Amino acid sequence: MYAVGVDIGGMSIKVGIVSDKGKIIAENRVKTAKTAEQCIKNMVEQINSLFKENNLTINEISGIGIGCPGAVTSQTGVVDFLPNLGWENVPLADELRKSFNTTIKISNDANVAALGEAIYGAAKNYNTSIMFTLGTGVGGGMIIDKKLFEGGFSRGAELGHITLFLDGEPCTCGRRGCIECYTSATALIKQTKNAMLKNKASTMWEFVDGDIDKVDGRTAFECSKTGDKTAIEVVDTYVYYLSESVLNMLNIFRPDAFILGGGISAQGNYLTDKIKAYCEKFDYGYKRAPRTEIICATLGNAAGIIGAAALVNN
Amino acid sequence: MYAVGVDIGGMSIKVGIVSDKGKIIAENRVKTAKTAEQCIKNMVEQINSLFKENNLTINEISGIGIGCPGAVTSQTGVVDFLPNLGWENVPLADELRKSFNTTIKISNDANVAALGEAIYGAAKNYNTSIMFTLGTGVGGGMIIDKKLFEGGFSRGAELGHITLFLDGEPCTCGRRGCIECYTSATALIKQTKNAMLKNKASTMWEFVDGDIDKVDGRTAFECSKTGDKTAIEVVDTYVYYLSESVLNMLNIFRPDAFILGGGISAQGNYLTDKIKAYCEKFDYGYKRAPRTEIICATLGNAAGIIGAAALVNN
Repeated sequence: MYAVGVDIGGMSIKVGIVSDKGKIIAENRVKTAKTAEQCIKNMVEQINSLFKENNLTINEISGIGIGCPGAVTSQTGVVDFLPNLGWENVPLADELRKSFNTTIKISNDANVAALGEAIYGAAKNYNTSIMFTLGTGVGGGMIIDKKLFEGGFSRGAELGHITLFLDGEPCTCGRRGCIECYTSATALIKQTKNAMLKNKASTMWEFVDGDIDKVDGRTAFECSKTGDKTAIEVVDTYVYYLSESVLNMLNIFRPDAFILGGGISAQGNYLTDKIKAYCEKFDYGYKRAPRTEIICATLGNAAGIIGAAALVNN
Repeated sequence: MYAVGVDIGGMSIKVGIVSDKGKIIAENRVKTAKTAEQCIKNMVEQINSLFKENNLTINEISGIGIGCPGAVTSQTGVVDFLPNLGWENVPLADELRKSFNTTIKISNDANVAALGEAIYGAAKNYNTSIMFTLGTGVGGGMIIDKKLFEGGFSRGAELGHITLFLDGEPCTCGRRGCIECYTSATALIKQTKNAMLKNKASTMWEFVDGDIDKVDGRTAFECSKTGDKTAIEVVDTYVYYLSESVLNMLNIFRPDAFILGGGISAQGNYLTDKIKAYCEKFDYGYKRAPRTEIICATLGNAAGIIGAAALVNN
């Protein structure tokens, strides 16, 4: 059967028809509207137009799954709070049920990404997997025995909000020193810029055409590969932060696989080889327990739609 | 039905018959022998003598549950490593099966304590509970939907080995700055002694009859209650470390209840009221999600036997 996956983002809402093998067979997107009401209206239109274009009826899909960038109560299908979209207490599942007589499930976007990787992506051969999505912030997803575990009240899995430095950098969550403040793409960019400002001879300046505003999550990684010492230092420090964050998760979950997602995971083995080397040295369980595989996500930008569809497609 | 609970410790091995209501109806203990072989022989004798004294046969018990202070593979019943006892790769369940034809299960001692509290103790009215045992080290136990979750390969739940201060105090696990280094009873005693050495006028000196070697996990707490400023500072700092550690777990699991066990939990509400006040201020989910109850363990020293019995008694 097919399923509909909806990926709600700050810029656009993506809707796709996904096969039970996890392939997107059709997809469209619409700019994120200013109100929840208009967004829902657009979603209904987009889903209906995908049905029409693909000669599908509601009876031929297993349901509609939706990933939301914020706090949701998955049990009731209510979006509690999407800070970037200004949504508060929106009964999303109920609203969509007015148009579609099918199973409708919602979850947090990082949970959905982890589920997508577990069912169709990097973690498909593993029963238990934990995922970090390294983006603007750091999201987390926990898959235990192939099932999404959202934590109590579907409000756990905030894996970016674990301390790395007590009383460290201020975090958006109100605490200080969270993993997110050191391992997000935002944090890496800040670390890269700081290093560049201290080292005007670094080749990272050439890489960004002398314009520090062009620094992104790739800058330090790419320049480290060509031997730039400043870039190597930035990467080494970032890997240290990230490895220690991963070790925390290994000590809690000892999963079969640990998945790194988000833009930074495009570094692939260049990143995971370094993390593995660090973890082998300091992992509490390595000497006497089977190893956790540390791998990068494989679904890329499609993770949102495919993962959302996986909420109703397995 | 009854179950046998065995609590293996560094000093003694305690064996008890536990009712299905979680009451110990008979109990004995034997000094921990030097070899695993002798320990197992002693366990068999103790269990048989309890059966005899209580007119029970093997058919009247649901099984034998065992808590071990170290790494075990619960799936196979093998004790991988008990550092304090010098055990390595001991097929404990198989050895006991030679004498007892019944279900035999083993787990880590902190897991067993969390299970005991979840089934019969502080967390019995909650589905999902996470526990810290604050003792020589910091152990952890995770109960999800009333089931013990040991992590993959039964090697997770090392909740004491999550960073609080990256590159902080050296930890027994090989890393630095773990929760255990700041929130164990051992850590509190060290914090108390350091404060006393800096403040010779503190009433804590009277409390320990001028002998710093008499400092224990109660010293700072009891003297803080009578207004000693140095003791209050020690307690406030300890509570800060512990609250931040608890917040990490709430962000991951958002459990129904968070349980504090070990000797320090004897402080009861005096401790939990402070932690609750801190968590309300800084908890990511508090404003919009139901609250996690933060409570102390209630089974005390019996947790080892009762929790071990719960492995086979529910």
